[in-house]
Amino acid sequence: MSELRRDPLLDRWVIIAEERQLRPQDAPSSAEYELPTVDADSDPFAAGNERYTPAEVYAIRPNGEPNSPGWTVRAIPNKYPILRVEGDLDPRGYGVYDKLEGIGAHEVVIETPSDLQLRDLPLSQIYDVLNTFRLRMEDLTRDKRFAYVMVFKNHGRSAGATQSHSHSQIVALPIMPVRVREQLTALQQHWQLKRRSLFQDIIDQELRQRERVVFENESMLVICPFASSFPFELQILPKRQSADFRQASVEELRDLAEALKASLLKWKGALGEVAYNMMLHTAPNDTRQGSIYQEFPLIDTYYFWHIELLPRLTKTAGFEWGTGHYINPVLPERAAEYLREIEVELS
Amino acid sequence: MSELRRDPLLDRWVIIAEERQLRPQDAPSSAEYELPTVDADSDPFAAGNERYTPAEVYAIRPNGEPNSPGWTVRAIPNKYPILRVEGDLDPRGYGVYDKLEGIGAHEVVIETPSDLQLRDLPLSQIYDVLNTFRLRMEDLTRDKRFAYVMVFKNHGRSAGATQSHSHSQIVALPIMPVRVREQLTALQQHWQLKRRSLFQDIIDQELRQRERVVFENESMLVICPFASSFPFELQILPKRQSADFRQASVEELRDLAEALKASLLKWKGALGEVAYNMMLHTAPNDTRQGSIYQEFPLIDTYYFWHIELLPRLTKTAGFEWGTGHYINPVLPERAAEYLREIEVELS
Repeated sequence: MSELRRDPLLDRWVIIAEERQLRPQDAPSSAEYELPTVDADSDPFAAGNERYTPAEVYAIRPNGEPNSPGWTVRAIPNKYPILRVEGDLDPRGYGVYDKLEGIGAHEVVIETPSDLQLRDLPLSQIYDVLNTFRLRMEDLTRDKRFAYVMVFKNHGRSAGATQSHSHSQIVALPIMPVRVREQLTALQQHWQLKRRSLFQDIIDQELRQRERVVFENESMLVICPFASSFPFELQILPKRQSADFRQASVEELRDLAEALKASLLKWKGALGEVAYNMMLHTAPNDTRQGSIYQEFPLIDTYYFWHIELLPRLTKTAGFEWGTGHYINPVLPERAAEYLREIEVELS
Repeated sequence: MSELRRDPLLDRWVIIAEERQLRPQDAPSSAEYELPTVDADSDPFAAGNERYTPAEVYAIRPNGEPNSPGWTVRAIPNKYPILRVEGDLDPRGYGVYDKLEGIGAHEVVIETPSDLQLRDLPLSQIYDVLNTFRLRMEDLTRDKRFAYVMVFKNHGRSAGATQSHSHSQIVALPIMPVRVREQLTALQQHWQLKRRSLFQDIIDQELRQRERVVFENESMLVICPFASSFPFELQILPKRQSADFRQASVEELRDLAEALKASLLKWKGALGEVAYNMMLHTAPNDTRQGSIYQEFPLIDTYYFWHIELLPRLTKTAGFEWGTGHYINPVLPERAAEYLREIEVELS
């Protein structure tokens, strides 16, 4: 039974997820870093252990019955969801405060039945993972209660992972995330001033200057963003305007699989094993009521779906929490040069 | 030589601090948690080791010469500052991007010559630490290049501390932090609607409901905020409107010392040793040019200085980075009840 509460001082919703409740005696020791080694018998995401997870909602399955071995990619509801699917938002006031019921969806995409990490999977398998993201996002978008669907990945304990088996997560949210709204506001202001997409202007400048370019192919560009918040942060963008990841073409997904694998392998060459977060942002859902498209009617014109990759090398501390600004000890141009020069094998 | 770069997609400045540069081979292993044990000989903040730090800018010093033993609280410039004092902001465009020189101030307040932590210092010593914050903030505010002064504390490695000796940091920034601007926007909207301070409405509701109150005395209130982003998060607020911490009275600082010690001791009772961040927010500086007071003329009427205390029990992961929203597994009312019942000795 989770709920959403609005922080009135920051105009920001927080998810209070009691199902995941942490009693004081359960407080995790921050000293643990490594995920416990999981043998194939107890790994809930390994082939043969399908009975440990909720029933699959989608699978790429050359062989076998649903919820049995024979799959190569498998999407399941999260066993410990931060939001639940059943019910209504039921907005309520509470004096000066506001609440919503914790309605949404929370799924897991198991990226491989093996114990390989995402970067070590063959390109065709990474393509299948990305296409699974696309299909699950498309399906979750049909539920008109959801304002936004996001894919994210936590790899390594210091990036928040609790399972070492390679997986990503998909959440469907009843609210517009503040980070998306901030981007839309910047994009709309730029459009009103210039009649151009800010994303397109960034891509044009990056391709012209090439100082922050790490990798590119026919349709995808990988850069260290000019104002990276984290050292060795990467952003993957389609070169041609494309607002909705759910409409990505076969060619785009193929190029994206290559760009993603190249990014992760270049990190490995530069940094060794590193914990990281990946976030896939796409255009908001066009819901019936109070749609964000009424406020930002040109989303499909100026938005670009994109992937952010954050290595977790630095710690956020009092400065970051107190100001909302980040300190990055590595010049993005230097990180890009370093990563550009690392050769990787893509197959 | 640090610089500020504006992220055009989020309208947010990032500090690129090359002095603190991390080469790939220096990438910190996230596995390290405990700060290295520092013996008195090599602790740069211990009495007798004043030669290891920059010369003090302020000290409470019953005995001895400046930069020698005999002090009880000592303020020094940070040896590895994120911003430097000399120079001008020199705003420049760079295609679609924007840059500023990394101008500002970055000081360290050493809270005790001993190896005690803040919570274990006597109340009179905590009072002296708070009064040192006040005096240094006051002094830094005289520099009209600075828009905002904030105090923060990182305690424990997972909270970003790199020194185990008890200390806090003060930064003076040339820009208005986004978190402060977000609060001012919410406060101004509430004022326009209600002609009341949102902080006052929150305090009134908390004192009436008492569900989230953890501690109070004559002038200070400690609560678990309604929309806490973190489990066991605390906020310390003055009960009577007071925008500027630099104008806090002797009585307020005495009560704040007690409220702060009570908060940290209650955490210890509930959670044991815990890494945490503390942030002290006060009203912005009223600088001459383009002052924030032109945009928000009633800051002195509706703002309340306050302290935020965040225990670092949970990890921020892809969901939080991608959305800007937090997941808190502990109901704030339950955390408050638990902390309220823990008895602490205040002396």
